[in-house]
Amino acid sequence: MSKKGFVLWFTGLSGAGKSTLAEYLTPIIIERGTNVEILDGDVVRTNLSKGLGFSKEDRDTNIRRIGFVANLLARNGVCAITAAISPYEGVRNECRAIVDRKHAEFVEVYVEAPLSVVEERDTKGLYKKARAGEIKNFTGIDDPYEAPKHAEIVVHTGKESIEESANKILKFLESKGLVAKTARV
Amino acid sequence: MSKKGFVLWFTGLSGAGKSTLAEYLTPIIIERGTNVEILDGDVVRTNLSKGLGFSKEDRDTNIRRIGFVANLLARNGVCAITAAISPYEGVRNECRAIVDRKHAEFVEVYVEAPLSVVEERDTKGLYKKARAGEIKNFTGIDDPYEAPKHAEIVVHTGKESIEESANKILKFLESKGLVAKTARV
Repeated sequence: MSKKGFVLWFTGLSGAGKSTLAEYLTPIIIERGTNVEILDGDVVRTNLSKGLGFSKEDRDTNIRRIGFVANLLARNGVCAITAAISPYEGVRNECRAIVDRKHAEFVEVYVEAPLSVVEERDTKGLYKKARAGEIKNFTGIDDPYEAPKHAEIVVHTGKESIEESANKILKFLESKGLVAKTARV
Repeated sequence: MSKKGFVLWFTGLSGAGKSTLAEYLTPIIIERGTNVEILDGDVVRTNLSKGLGFSKEDRDTNIRRIGFVANLLARNGVCAITAAISPYEGVRNECRAIVDRKHAEFVEVYVEAPLSVVEERDTKGLYKKARAGEIKNFTGIDDPYEAPKHAEIVVHTGKESIEESANKILKFLESKGLVAKTARV
């Protein structure tokens, strides 16, 4: 069997920088010799969860599916980066528990940014719509976000640059032997 | 990036021997140095498609999800074996088309056995229930099965032993360089 893979589980509010960080890290991790797959919230909703809504039950189902696929990839040596909001701690912990520890690791990254910051950014214009009531069950506005209590890594994208946050994550992965310290290309 | 993976897409009636062949082949392919994941119809319905039924639309959605995950695995060097009935040619061809040809191959295996044979076996007792009308939309009874027209491999499990069918598949995979000819352990 090949080397140990891992799930890099990003969680945080919409606009906190989960996908940005995932995309920033991807070429770096590939350069170090580990394949990467990003399981982005939108991509997964299109390909695995069409028809699901944003109730707690539907969100949990969506997240469980991401966890199922992330584990399949990670136990085959891949770095599976998930970049869905994943607001509920219970189901995040379920996903942590299903990871095949013999062949993979689970690394939770809390991508923290205050609501005021992400709402000010409003990269996709969604907070404006949520405040106007055009979108219901929007995390942080009229739907809860449960911050992780035991995340392996916390990054503060409201005050750190992308490089700073990414380096924190890389240092952790290096220290666990999950990514090589230098490029292998 | 790692070596080329492949999707080994089994299709055939319930009881034709898809899962049996998948389980028979798995340790052999692993011994030859390639990781294997089986995406069995039941496992996928539990983990990715809970709530979907057996209408053509729901079946197609289920199969598309299997194809999505199989491609993610295969393009990372894994042998992803799918063992769902997958009765419709259109969606099987969609799954063939989404495979990332730069890093993976798609190999369709028609696991052929006459209805009379699988109904006689009736390993799960499902044909009896379908004939009695207790199960509706059962492939081969009151739901169609579209045999593949361009499968890379056809095995006839009504007249071949498991070993014979498995060897046919292995020979093909060896000829394409997808599995090594000898064990690598």
